Amino acid sequence: MYKINGKEFKCSVEITNEIFNDKWKLGIVWHLLNGSKRYKELSEDIYQITQKTLTVKLKELEEKKLIKREVFAEVPPKVIYSLTPIGKKLQDTLNAMNNWGIEYAKECGEITDNYVCEKKH
Amino acid sequence: MYKINGKEFKCSVEITNEIFNDKWKLGIVWHLLNGSKRYKELSEDIYQITQKTLTVKLKELEEKKLIKREVFAEVPPKVIYSLTPIGKKLQDTLNAMNNWGIEYAKECGEITDNYVCEKKH
Repeated sequence: MYKINGKEFKCSVEITNEIFNDKWKLGIVWHLLNGSKRYKELSEDIYQITQKTLTVKLKELEEKKLIKREVFAEVPPKVIYSLTPIGKKLQDTLNAMNNWGIEYAKECGEITDNYVCEKKH
Repeated sequence: MYKINGKEFKCSVEITNEIFNDKWKLGIVWHLLNGSKRYKELSEDIYQITQKTLTVKLKELEEKKLIKREVFAEVPPKVIYSLTPIGKKLQDTLNAMNNWGIEYAKECGEITDNYVCEKKH
């Protein structure tokens, strides 16, 4: 059994699922695996996310210690987001999810053009 | 780009996330990776799931072609669930999630006893 912030988990898969049972968070981590990014860059990378939602999700990921937020005293202020060491360790999970997504599309759907987002990594 | 049942996905990670943006489905797949199971066994394996929710989630996973359901004409009827070939290919994703969950618990929480569910696999 595992205990994180007072909550018990019977299985370690549940821990990961609890964090990523979410429409957006995995996408944010995926885009940060390329390196740190400014808020504006993330809002362009994450397809169709609203500013309000992006702000909430970044805060949740920061609270979970997956990303860190640095503010530089410039005008306008520069805010940079990057993955923490434990956040970076999600690379294997995301690579596996990415590979499976392609397999699933081949089997149950179609690949409509050559744009593949994993090429960035 | 990818298209599955009329829906477009820009990124293959989104495909996997769309299926598993859910509290229960990954757990169901995880327990079926050990081999086929009866409904009753699954309801015991998946901690705290209600019968109604389990039925809905199994139906959704069947519609997504991740599991198959076989009914044997016995009294009472015997219903067996198992993973399809594409469902079985989730092993890598789930192993990676499992490993990361353990790392995360070590770093941000605690391991409270020696019960580890991944030993079954």
